[in-house]
Amino acid sequence: MRAELIAIGSELLTPVRSDTNALFLTEKLLEAGIEVGVRLTVADDPSLLESAFRAALARAEVVISTGGLGPTADDLTREAAAAALGRRLVRDGRMVDALRDRFARYGRAMAPVNEKQADVIEGAAVLPNPRGTAPGLLVETAGRVLVLLPGPPGEMGPMFVEQVLPSLRERSLGRVIKSRVLRVAAMGESDVEQIVAPLYTTFTNPMTTILGGPGQVELHLRGHGASEEEAEERIEKLAAGLRELLRGRVFSEDGRELPEVVADLLRERGLRLAVAESCTGGLLATRLTEVPGSSGYFERGFVTYSDRSKVEHLGVDPAVLEAAGAVSEPVARAMARGARQRAGSDLGIGITGIAGPEGGSPEKPVGLVYVALCGAAGESVRRTLLPGDRRTIRFRATQVALELLRRGLLGLEPA
Amino acid sequence: MRAELIAIGSELLTPVRSDTNALFLTEKLLEAGIEVGVRLTVADDPSLLESAFRAALARAEVVISTGGLGPTADDLTREAAAAALGRRLVRDGRMVDALRDRFARYGRAMAPVNEKQADVIEGAAVLPNPRGTAPGLLVETAGRVLVLLPGPPGEMGPMFVEQVLPSLRERSLGRVIKSRVLRVAAMGESDVEQIVAPLYTTFTNPMTTILGGPGQVELHLRGHGASEEEAEERIEKLAAGLRELLRGRVFSEDGRELPEVVADLLRERGLRLAVAESCTGGLLATRLTEVPGSSGYFERGFVTYSDRSKVEHLGVDPAVLEAAGAVSEPVARAMARGARQRAGSDLGIGITGIAGPEGGSPEKPVGLVYVALCGAAGESVRRTLLPGDRRTIRFRATQVALELLRRGLLGLEPA
Repeated sequence: MRAELIAIGSELLTPVRSDTNALFLTEKLLEAGIEVGVRLTVADDPSLLESAFRAALARAEVVISTGGLGPTADDLTREAAAAALGRRLVRDGRMVDALRDRFARYGRAMAPVNEKQADVIEGAAVLPNPRGTAPGLLVETAGRVLVLLPGPPGEMGPMFVEQVLPSLRERSLGRVIKSRVLRVAAMGESDVEQIVAPLYTTFTNPMTTILGGPGQVELHLRGHGASEEEAEERIEKLAAGLRELLRGRVFSEDGRELPEVVADLLRERGLRLAVAESCTGGLLATRLTEVPGSSGYFERGFVTYSDRSKVEHLGVDPAVLEAAGAVSEPVARAMARGARQRAGSDLGIGITGIAGPEGGSPEKPVGLVYVALCGAAGESVRRTLLPGDRRTIRFRATQVALELLRRGLLGLEPA
Repeated sequence: MRAELIAIGSELLTPVRSDTNALFLTEKLLEAGIEVGVRLTVADDPSLLESAFRAALARAEVVISTGGLGPTADDLTREAAAAALGRRLVRDGRMVDALRDRFARYGRAMAPVNEKQADVIEGAAVLPNPRGTAPGLLVETAGRVLVLLPGPPGEMGPMFVEQVLPSLRERSLGRVIKSRVLRVAAMGESDVEQIVAPLYTTFTNPMTTILGGPGQVELHLRGHGASEEEAEERIEKLAAGLRELLRGRVFSEDGRELPEVVADLLRERGLRLAVAESCTGGLLATRLTEVPGSSGYFERGFVTYSDRSKVEHLGVDPAVLEAAGAVSEPVARAMARGARQRAGSDLGIGITGIAGPEGGSPEKPVGLVYVALCGAAGESVRRTLLPGDRRTIRFRATQVALELLRRGLLGLEPA
């Protein structure tokens, strides 16, 4: 079974706005076993809209539009859909009364233009909208379903999930699609690919998509089955194999990002952390404190950008700074040690590197980063050369630090 | 003149990927005076694709597709477009040779499947692709233009700008559309709207769209004219009026974000800055050091999350912490002063607040933030109650701090 989505509104065709409803609907439809074949965004123009509805209804079993159901002259969805279906629009007297009541409840008189929202396509079911004024419409025609939903995501989402999705799920004959995302940090996409390809390519259910982003690779597994349990079982079978091949590198399978995983580990162990950052300029502290309740494990942070601040706040030996340079293994170690000691925390992290675009040299190129971790059990340090622009290098460096910390907390060797 | 865009590829119809080419093309087309009426995303399915091309060509003067020009079985764009036009595909011998040469240059033999990329729709112009293997195609038919571009943005963008846009611009009869974005920080959308609506609503050229985001409001002005100069003049006329109404609140009209504007002001004045953050957890330091060359003005940062760290690193008086509480005006002031003094910098900023979701009380609710700025000229402080979730409150707080700093550097009163 296949669906098409039509997002309606000229504002969605400027470079500044884009349609987010489609992603939500695509995900929900996929979970119900329905794939999206075409997605359209159409301007507020009656003939374009009618043509788009007509073409979509000729191709797909399910057509869902969002937007254009409001009271203004720009809101043309009802009219265009009715024209494409060759049906009339009928004003529903009880809906007009209900709209008037809604305005009255907020102490306002209803402008006559709002009555338009009570126009119903002949034979359509009305989908009440408790969160707004414009109701949705659902039309069944020749084995096809046309659904008109309001544009605001806060109205569209619940209306779709509560009033439309259950019947679509039945139509799709109970095929269920589930998905899971396995996340790996501080490894390149092609390195992950090389390790896992021999396994995942032997599976067609689940299907695997590998998405690489800066400092992180995601394995998206999508499996289907007659029931949720069957789909989940199939996913787990492949996930177990991938987990084993990647030997401790999968940090999340439940949607958590790396800072949340590390935060949970710190909390479980009752450990407190201090960080000292140079090239990342506070980004590691920012990411660690983005997690709610971070005061439970985050003690303090030092953004020691200048050499002087490394000496004054972390006790880095000026002679070491002079001899090895600010971007060096001994300085990263001294920063981690200094952060831990000055903060009186259980753990300390130090990061020093060159984020660019300026400041690189043949011996110490842009992207060179040292990360050190220091705790009661000892020290570990990682030297890495990170690709990308300034922002990417900084983000990757925090991923390396968080992964070093995660492995330390789990008692795994530094990767 | 109106265009339609067709993005091709099943991967674009999953919840994980989305089409970014459309935004680029929409912007370039608008600048050339061509509006986009419909945007489609279509799966790799021959009948869906043919139907989409046919419908688009029936509606629009310009149809541009991206993707599906590669060598694999999934790449069906050429075939579908040819079918929709009722034309044949012809394999171009010289293009086959050129493809083979390209592979040879990288020391590889060409697999036969690649020859498909030398298939040309009868009567089409070939658009060479120096950045990849798949060339583009341009077909003129009955006053309409169909352009097939490759999917990778790095190939699509230059091909479109260099080989397609100039002729489209001529066709659109020299109407030019220009745009400008005026940015305002730390003000609500409705407050900005109330101030500027009496002016901008009297203009139809330029048109104004107001976009509100956390901690920032953008006024997008889009004007057209017979020449770039005319369009720019019309925009400047409105922009000048808006600037006056907003009395020093417009911080950027050239695309710069607030940290870049502040960085430029600091550099011009040769001033160095230190920051002390509590609730923002390093985000202010992160944003200030995201700008390349930030070591020229950023001296150091303190993420003093715990009370103890505020005392140890910033010299905040424990009695003040005790009496007023960590989230208070005197503590914000003491943090700014301490950061400046300990760092020996020209300026110091202190931020303390409650980012939530926990930690609020009736007297000090979630979202309460104090920001203080301290320099040779004295101190200023701002108390604000910020809406949103943890992440939004933290971001908004950095906007308030950056705007306080910007106004201080320009000698404007704190807003």
